[in-house]
Amino acid sequence: MRKTFALFFWFALLAFSQAPAPQQPLLVSPEIHADHRVTFRIQAPQADMVTFFGDWMPVGKQEKMTKDEQGVWSVTLGPLPPSIYLYSFTVDGVTMADPVNPRIKLRSRTSASMVEVPSDSPALWQERDVPHGMVAINWHTAKALGGGTRAVWVYTPPGYEKDTSRRYPVLYLFHGSNDTAAGWTLAGNANFILDNLLAEKKAVPMIVVMPYGHAVPFTAPRDQQAKNTALFEEYVLKDVKPLVESKFRTMTGREHRAIAGLSMGGGQAITIGFNHLDLFSSVAAMSAAVPADFETRFAQALRAPDKTNAQLKTLWIGCGKQDFLFDRSEKFSALLTANQIRHTFRPTEGLHTYTVWRQYLGEVLPLLFR
Amino acid sequence: MRKTFALFFWFALLAFSQAPAPQQPLLVSPEIHADHRVTFRIQAPQADMVTFFGDWMPVGKQEKMTKDEQGVWSVTLGPLPPSIYLYSFTVDGVTMADPVNPRIKLRSRTSASMVEVPSDSPALWQERDVPHGMVAINWHTAKALGGGTRAVWVYTPPGYEKDTSRRYPVLYLFHGSNDTAAGWTLAGNANFILDNLLAEKKAVPMIVVMPYGHAVPFTAPRDQQAKNTALFEEYVLKDVKPLVESKFRTMTGREHRAIAGLSMGGGQAITIGFNHLDLFSSVAAMSAAVPADFETRFAQALRAPDKTNAQLKTLWIGCGKQDFLFDRSEKFSALLTANQIRHTFRPTEGLHTYTVWRQYLGEVLPLLFR
Repeated sequence: MRKTFALFFWFALLAFSQAPAPQQPLLVSPEIHADHRVTFRIQAPQADMVTFFGDWMPVGKQEKMTKDEQGVWSVTLGPLPPSIYLYSFTVDGVTMADPVNPRIKLRSRTSASMVEVPSDSPALWQERDVPHGMVAINWHTAKALGGGTRAVWVYTPPGYEKDTSRRYPVLYLFHGSNDTAAGWTLAGNANFILDNLLAEKKAVPMIVVMPYGHAVPFTAPRDQQAKNTALFEEYVLKDVKPLVESKFRTMTGREHRAIAGLSMGGGQAITIGFNHLDLFSSVAAMSAAVPADFETRFAQALRAPDKTNAQLKTLWIGCGKQDFLFDRSEKFSALLTANQIRHTFRPTEGLHTYTVWRQYLGEVLPLLFR
Repeated sequence: MRKTFALFFWFALLAFSQAPAPQQPLLVSPEIHADHRVTFRIQAPQADMVTFFGDWMPVGKQEKMTKDEQGVWSVTLGPLPPSIYLYSFTVDGVTMADPVNPRIKLRSRTSASMVEVPSDSPALWQERDVPHGMVAINWHTAKALGGGTRAVWVYTPPGYEKDTSRRYPVLYLFHGSNDTAAGWTLAGNANFILDNLLAEKKAVPMIVVMPYGHAVPFTAPRDQQAKNTALFEEYVLKDVKPLVESKFRTMTGREHRAIAGLSMGGGQAITIGFNHLDLFSSVAAMSAAVPADFETRFAQALRAPDKTNAQLKTLWIGCGKQDFLFDRSEKFSALLTANQIRHTFRPTEGLHTYTVWRQYLGEVLPLLFR
């Protein structure tokens, strides 16, 4: 009987998913309380065990949820510091996004939900009533990858469309593994962060180019994954850069180009940046998968610190001390220091999450192009 | 033991969700076969019943899935005609998107997954190697709705950024209930449809404006939902139109504006269009939630067919004969006919899905602005 009811409920929701009026009363999840605690709920009357994972929790930990008489499982957690959090439910062994929360984290494979705990005093990453830039999705044929249509997300600053003679410097900004070209916008709020910095005159108006970082399909076998960075470099330089420079009013010359990324994208930014100091004058690596062979691969740059320091206006490395990749950033910084390569190393509190990356972007953008 | 393993599997996936290399071997879902049958799979070893719903199926029907020794449930369906389909799994009463398919249908509340069965001879809605327009996400403060930041998705045709003196006609294009401003792009392929029509010179280059249609929150009680169209009209006319006309090179004058939508958005297009024949010269309603009070509300337009016919260059009504809203479109067309209002009525095969709406958009766009 219960089963029948639950099925009917979902049929009804599906049936009316495009129809005018929603059914009442509706389950609320997530519910953010005034004190920044958050209640998560899922209706799963037939489940034996439902647990919760949020990306502020240690990996592997799951919070138990409890079931009420209506078959709704819930857990209240926090208070959580204002930020964005990714979370998922595991219902009898099946991990899933929150079925009633529209804020889905788009990924290359698995999905999760997002909850934003708003700040009482507007945070840098929060949308404010300031002039907003646009993010344009640009589809194109990825010739360097043998064809196929890909999307590059491109931020243009407020006023871009007004003064059609003005040209802008360009930041190439890469996402992490299992993320998409939409990640820095829809989870990272890169656009709002830059809007807010511009409104406060703390950053230079710039174009931000956000391509899709999986040149090799995310689901391809591991040996093929090893070629991803090299193939992505080809793609960025032969497809993305020409596309952006032909469609948008970019400034040319290395001093007007920076390259940055998080996790996998941080590794890509380091590799492509150091491979092409002729094209990029600043590199930022956030919680980066630093290339394991950096020391041998870029021995030339390490052996000529004066030249490298003259070329690199900004070399910024940030990582959360609780991040599983912290060790890589710390060793990378030590290697640079040992070779007298000027850089900023920012060990911060934090895990491998957008909470940290939003903060880092807010720190990096003001350093660029001035 | 099984439970422990399954949990560990998902912990591992979560842990490495931003890390470089995916685990192997990976479950494949959906798998599209050469004969256009599709296999859907989900790993749910502890589940008692897993069923499948696809939007080509009658509402309420569920296909049974069967479990293999590894706890993977699967079903092979079709062959399906080339198109886009939305689908979901119901695992012991919990309806969810496909956990391994990255193509999630973003909605206002529930989510589903999407599968695209490609056409052997490129369909109009399929991306081709032709010049692509962009879709720009424009954030702004919705003053007519009392504040808050909203996003309007705006398509600009190929070449828009080159000839900065050229101005374009504008189509306002609305989504259905429980959809989002992204729907016409990420599920409807409106951008590719227009790119392809432009490449074939079958449509006029135009700007397409896609706002978010839930002016009243989708989860608000039913009595508040009744005010949605009126509030949305305020929002479109006082916020969206001025935004678009100030940021993009639009042509002004009613002959350069059209209004269209699907389902709830079709109702909105009819209402806003007939309320403002001073602003719009064409109206298209796809599988529309035709306003129940059209006859009384727009009695004036019905009673003056000569004037109305002179104002309305195109009045297009399409609906699938198997759609639960077919009756409304049919009666609407009969009412118009009885009052000698010139229009096109296109009863087609089909349900209430993007399969139909992609087809309709391909039929409507060539009619506009010529």
